[in-house]
Amino acid sequence: MNNFIFENSTKVYFGKGSVKEFLAGSIKEYGNNVMLAYGGGSIKKNGVYDEINSILKAEGKNVIEFSGIMSNPTYSKVKEGAKLARDNNIDMILAVGGGSVMDCCKAVSLAAAYDGDIWADYWEKSGVVYFDPIPLGVIVTVAGTGSECNGGAVITNEEKKIKTGRDYPKCNPKFAIMDPEYTFSVPKLQTASGGFDILSHIMETYFSKTDDDNVSDDISEALMKSIIKNLPAALENPKYYIARSNLMWAATMAENRIIKLGKQCDFQAHQIEHQLGAYTNCNHGCGLAVIHPTYYRKIYKNGMSKFVKFAKNVWGISDIGKTADKVALEGIDALADFIKKIGLPTTLRELGIDDKDILPDIGASCNIAPGSYGDMNKKAIMEILVECY
Amino acid sequence: MNNFIFENSTKVYFGKGSVKEFLAGSIKEYGNNVMLAYGGGSIKKNGVYDEINSILKAEGKNVIEFSGIMSNPTYSKVKEGAKLARDNNIDMILAVGGGSVMDCCKAVSLAAAYDGDIWADYWEKSGVVYFDPIPLGVIVTVAGTGSECNGGAVITNEEKKIKTGRDYPKCNPKFAIMDPEYTFSVPKLQTASGGFDILSHIMETYFSKTDDDNVSDDISEALMKSIIKNLPAALENPKYYIARSNLMWAATMAENRIIKLGKQCDFQAHQIEHQLGAYTNCNHGCGLAVIHPTYYRKIYKNGMSKFVKFAKNVWGISDIGKTADKVALEGIDALADFIKKIGLPTTLRELGIDDKDILPDIGASCNIAPGSYGDMNKKAIMEILVECY
Repeated sequence: MNNFIFENSTKVYFGKGSVKEFLAGSIKEYGNNVMLAYGGGSIKKNGVYDEINSILKAEGKNVIEFSGIMSNPTYSKVKEGAKLARDNNIDMILAVGGGSVMDCCKAVSLAAAYDGDIWADYWEKSGVVYFDPIPLGVIVTVAGTGSECNGGAVITNEEKKIKTGRDYPKCNPKFAIMDPEYTFSVPKLQTASGGFDILSHIMETYFSKTDDDNVSDDISEALMKSIIKNLPAALENPKYYIARSNLMWAATMAENRIIKLGKQCDFQAHQIEHQLGAYTNCNHGCGLAVIHPTYYRKIYKNGMSKFVKFAKNVWGISDIGKTADKVALEGIDALADFIKKIGLPTTLRELGIDDKDILPDIGASCNIAPGSYGDMNKKAIMEILVECY
Repeated sequence: MNNFIFENSTKVYFGKGSVKEFLAGSIKEYGNNVMLAYGGGSIKKNGVYDEINSILKAEGKNVIEFSGIMSNPTYSKVKEGAKLARDNNIDMILAVGGGSVMDCCKAVSLAAAYDGDIWADYWEKSGVVYFDPIPLGVIVTVAGTGSECNGGAVITNEEKKIKTGRDYPKCNPKFAIMDPEYTFSVPKLQTASGGFDILSHIMETYFSKTDDDNVSDDISEALMKSIIKNLPAALENPKYYIARSNLMWAATMAENRIIKLGKQCDFQAHQIEHQLGAYTNCNHGCGLAVIHPTYYRKIYKNGMSKFVKFAKNVWGISDIGKTADKVALEGIDALADFIKKIGLPTTLRELGIDDKDILPDIGASCNIAPGSYGDMNKKAIMEILVECY
C-alpha cells in the first residue's frame, strides 16, 4: 500500500424504507428553511416527491424548491441555485436524485456560502475551503456516480466548454439516504449507463499505479465482479432487490475513497468523456462505454501485468498456453462484449455524434491525467477519438 | 444487501513516516495534558517511544505516562487509567500499541468522563453514551484487532471472569496513525496471531446471514485472500513492506464496519475465545486458531452454501465431481492447514491449557451469539471445547 490519508464523514442510511424511517430524524438538527432540489421531475411520477415532501411538511420545514437540474449540470444552474439559497436564507439543502443533482447541489452549497466566483477559485484551480458550505443531505435515486459519500462535484461551464470535477471533503453530504427500491423505476438505458459509470470508476482506479500487490486493488476486483453479475440481472428484472441493492452499494464503495487509498488514480477516460460531454452534452455513462475499450487497447502494453490480472481475476479468462498480450486483449474484449450485452453504444456515431469535425476541439481541450499507463498526449487522445468514431 | 446504518469518523494517516509527518499536526487542536499510553515497553526498545515522545515535547505537551497495559486488558487497569486521567486533567489520550492498548484506552476515555461504573452501565449491558469521552488518538504498532477505526473495546473483568466487548461510535479514535514499518519488529508468534485475528474477524462476519449475494461478502473474500497471501510472506520476511502494509490495512478494513454492512455478524468463535481468555489469559489469536476449525466442522452443514463458496472462492478448491459436503470440508481443512503453516497451536493443550477441569466453567460462561449458523447452545460449546482439547 502506498501512503494515504483517509476520512469520510457522511452518515449512510441504507435499505428498504430508509427515507420513511430516517429522513425526519436526519433533518431535525438543521434550521427551518430547506431547499428541496431535484431534476426533471421523475420523482413526481414515481411517488418519491410526495413521500419526501410530506415528511418535510410534517417536520414543520419551510420548503423552497430548486428543480430542473439537468444532466451535466451547468455552472449557470449552480449560480441560480446559489442565489435562490441566499435569497431564502436556506439552512440546509436536500438533494434528491442521481449524480447530476447531487453534484450541482454540492457546488450550490459552496457557492451560496462564498462571496467570490467558485468556478474561478475552486473548479478552475484547486482551492482550500476555509468556510462551511450550507449543510447538504442527499436521497439517492440512481446508482451511478457514488457522489453520495464524497465531496466531488462535476460541473460544466457552458461558456468555457469545460466539464470538470473537484472533491472537497467539506462538501461531503452530512447524510445520505439510500433506498434501492427508489431505483426500481430507473429506465433501462439509465440503469446501464449508471452501472457502467460505476464500473468505470473502479477500472480507472485499478488501472493506475501502484502495481504492487495491494488491498485496494483486491477490493476493486471484488466490486467489479459484483457489477458484472448484478447489472445484467437488474436490467432483466428492474425490481430485483438484491441486484439493485448491490449496484447501489457498489456505486458508493467505488467512490467513497476506500478503493482509491494508496492508488495514484488515473481517470483519463473520464477526462476524455468530460470534454465529449462539454461539447455534445452526451450521456456520461454512454460516453464512457464508447471510450473505454479503445482507450485500453491503446495503453494496455504499458500496464501489461495489471491487464492480465484484470482478464484473469475479473473476467475469469484462462491463461493456459497464451501469451500475456493475448490474455490482456481477451480481457478488454470481454469488457467490450459486456458493453454490448448491456445495450450501451460502442461508437461515437451510435452515441449520436454526427459531426466528426468537432473531434479536434474536443481532443485539444482534454486534460492529460498524470500517472496514466498510456503516457497520454493530445495526439494519442485524438487518435482514440477518431477510432471511437 | 440488508438494511444498515454506517458512519466512521476516524481520520487515518497511513504509511511510512506517517508519525513523523502527521503526529504534530494531529495533536495541535487538543489541550496540553496528553496521556501517553502503552503496553509492556517494547516501544522503548524499537525507538517508537523516543520518536513519539520527542514530537510531543516539541509541541510543548505535558506528557503523563500510563504504561504496563497488559494483553487482555483488565477492568482494574481501566480504572487505574481513568483515575490517572482525572487526577491530571488529561485533554487527550494517545494510545501507542496494538488492540489491547487501544481497547483499554477507549474504556479509559469513557470511564474518565463518567461518574458511574462503566462496567455495569456500558459493558455488562449496552448503554447510550450521551457524553463526550476524552478525545483519543492512536498509533498502531501491531496489525490485528483493527481497533483503530471503530469504537470497540474488549475488556476483561477479572473478578467476574468475563471478557467482553462493546462498540460505541463515540469511542472511535479521532485519528489513527499507521506506519507499517512500526510492525517490522513484531515477533513471529505475535505477527501470526494478529494475522489470524484479522482472518477470524472476516470469517465471523462472512459466516453469518444474509446468504444472499451481497457486496460485503465479496469484499470479505478479497480481504481473506489478501491475508492468506501476505501473512506467510510477512512471517518469512518481517521487513517486507508490501506484506506488512497489506496486513495492516486489511486489519482496519476488517473492523472499520465496512464488511459488516448488511450482515448479521456472528462472532461465536470470539465469544468462546473470550471466555477462554478470561479463565486462562491465553493469547487471543492463538485461542481463535484452536477454536475455528473445530467450530466450523460442527456448524458447516447449516451454512453449506456459504462454506462451499468459502472453499472455492477463498481457497481455490475445485468442486468438479465432488459433493457439496466434501467441498465444504476441504475448505475447512485448508483453513486448518493454514493455521499449522503459520505456526499457531491447534489444540488447547498446545495453547498451554493443562487443566481439562476448567472447561465446564468456561463453556458455561460463554455467550450464545444470535444468528449463528450453528444454532449453538451450551452443550454444543462444551463439545467444541472438549474436541479442541
